[in-house]
Amino acid sequence: MPKPVLISADWGTTSLRAFLLDRRGAIVDRRKAPKGIMKVSDGDFSGTFSALMGRWLNDSPDIPVLLSGMIGSEQGWAVAPHIPLPARLADLAAALHAVPITDKKCAYIVPGLTTVGVHGVHDIIRGEETQIVGALDDSATGESVLCLPGTHSKWVTVADGAISGFQTSLTGETLAILSDNSILGRLMENSATDNEKEETAFVQGLIRASEQGGLLHHLFGVRSQGYCRVIPRSGLRLYLAGILIGHEIRGMREIYPQLKSITIIAGQEIAERYGRALEFFGLQTTLVDGAAAAFGGHLKIARAAGLIRK
Amino acid sequence: MPKPVLISADWGTTSLRAFLLDRRGAIVDRRKAPKGIMKVSDGDFSGTFSALMGRWLNDSPDIPVLLSGMIGSEQGWAVAPHIPLPARLADLAAALHAVPITDKKCAYIVPGLTTVGVHGVHDIIRGEETQIVGALDDSATGESVLCLPGTHSKWVTVADGAISGFQTSLTGETLAILSDNSILGRLMENSATDNEKEETAFVQGLIRASEQGGLLHHLFGVRSQGYCRVIPRSGLRLYLAGILIGHEIRGMREIYPQLKSITIIAGQEIAERYGRALEFFGLQTTLVDGAAAAFGGHLKIARAAGLIRK
Repeated sequence: MPKPVLISADWGTTSLRAFLLDRRGAIVDRRKAPKGIMKVSDGDFSGTFSALMGRWLNDSPDIPVLLSGMIGSEQGWAVAPHIPLPARLADLAAALHAVPITDKKCAYIVPGLTTVGVHGVHDIIRGEETQIVGALDDSATGESVLCLPGTHSKWVTVADGAISGFQTSLTGETLAILSDNSILGRLMENSATDNEKEETAFVQGLIRASEQGGLLHHLFGVRSQGYCRVIPRSGLRLYLAGILIGHEIRGMREIYPQLKSITIIAGQEIAERYGRALEFFGLQTTLVDGAAAAFGGHLKIARAAGLIRK
Repeated sequence: MPKPVLISADWGTTSLRAFLLDRRGAIVDRRKAPKGIMKVSDGDFSGTFSALMGRWLNDSPDIPVLLSGMIGSEQGWAVAPHIPLPARLADLAAALHAVPITDKKCAYIVPGLTTVGVHGVHDIIRGEETQIVGALDDSATGESVLCLPGTHSKWVTVADGAISGFQTSLTGETLAILSDNSILGRLMENSATDNEKEETAFVQGLIRASEQGGLLHHLFGVRSQGYCRVIPRSGLRLYLAGILIGHEIRGMREIYPQLKSITIIAGQEIAERYGRALEFFGLQTTLVDGAAAAFGGHLKIARAAGLIRK
């Protein structure tokens, strides 16, 4: 078995995903637990983490541990303060925030990022900075744009190896709460039987997002198209998803009017869905796996911080 | 006491508001009850209605009764089917839907309206058609646009006395569920102490809505501006309201690019708030009281239907 050199954990609001990695970044072992920071009782993050890691820590007592995600927020283990832009790999490595696992061993939390947009509105990121660093080709020059879709969807600009700007959209969270709590959800029906019709509904949502009237008007159309049975009720959630993702892209195109290609960092299902949407709006896409980007980022940051040999 | 000639009731999802009117439209008596259609147990609408009206029905057994709002929906007393556009006063009067209060007496439900927009998307209205008829100057010619803000905000075109088009935006419901169920609500604090700062936050939301990046991006800014304390937490709900109302108006301006003036039909508080927002976006506004528009509409419809003498 290859010798592990790093424990990499993405610890978010709802779950923890950890990898035991060798020096080439190959996965030696992996863990996934529905033990997000909101489910850690009494704030016992060190005990919870030790228990989840099991024998990884016993077998390799000196192994460095890197964490990223909401674990570094006010609701997490400790606050790893957001650092300003532009941010390079070295800046993240220099701002690692140590938290004690035992009285002999620390874990290191990667800081988030903060910026102020052209209109004076603040924006913040936490967790995605690690994935971006992991996905970057370190030798690349020039400017590129990445999309990290999800609950809070991020569009990120990278220029000459530094994260130089980003914008967050509330896309995934809006989809979830409109489906669960609004009148739009009442007509939605689940169906695993007719994928083709549902995919059609997603594209109809993208088309709708490109029309006039604004997002709030298009949202009511989910109700009326379902009520009048123009969109099948099993397709209403994907119709709504198409409208929201379409409006996210349309809004971001106001900020990036010249954009022609974009890299998507995400799990396969959501990456493919965003890929279809971004291509609908005329962008060329490249997909990068989100989990691999996260542990790849941890490996680079750990090396830059001198926690593992280069 | 003037002789009452009509019972007018706006019966919605959350409440019932009723007026006893004389032949000039003056209010003889009024009732308001938190007895929306969702709170009528066992579907006993006739019993609930009789109880709420009390002696109105006993004192004037022959008085006509007009109802509008969600009482005419699938969840209400009986379905008064939506009628298509263009719709005039006479069309509403001809499509009244009778429901029995007792075995000797009926109430009449005003139908809703249905239309299909230029992009093939359906839209529906129920309750506002009565207010529009009530607010209209019957001798007016030409085209005018009315805004009926609320949970489901309506922009309505009237041409030569007929309702000829409308668009619904999910503004009020989105504000409520984002405040109650999303991460945006977590930082919101109530405060009755600093109205000026809160009004500033509303205008900051309107300004934000006029900038680039799209609504979903601006929504995340409610989180980040609150988190970074750029907007005071007591002002966050009004900042969000400004963003949503601003985006409703911006979206509707795509449909009505030439619009210069608009009539707002609503209760005083929401009418003044929309008035400020519409004026911010360059529109001249006229305010009409929503309750008076509703019973005024019922009076006109009852006359047109021959239920009371002209």
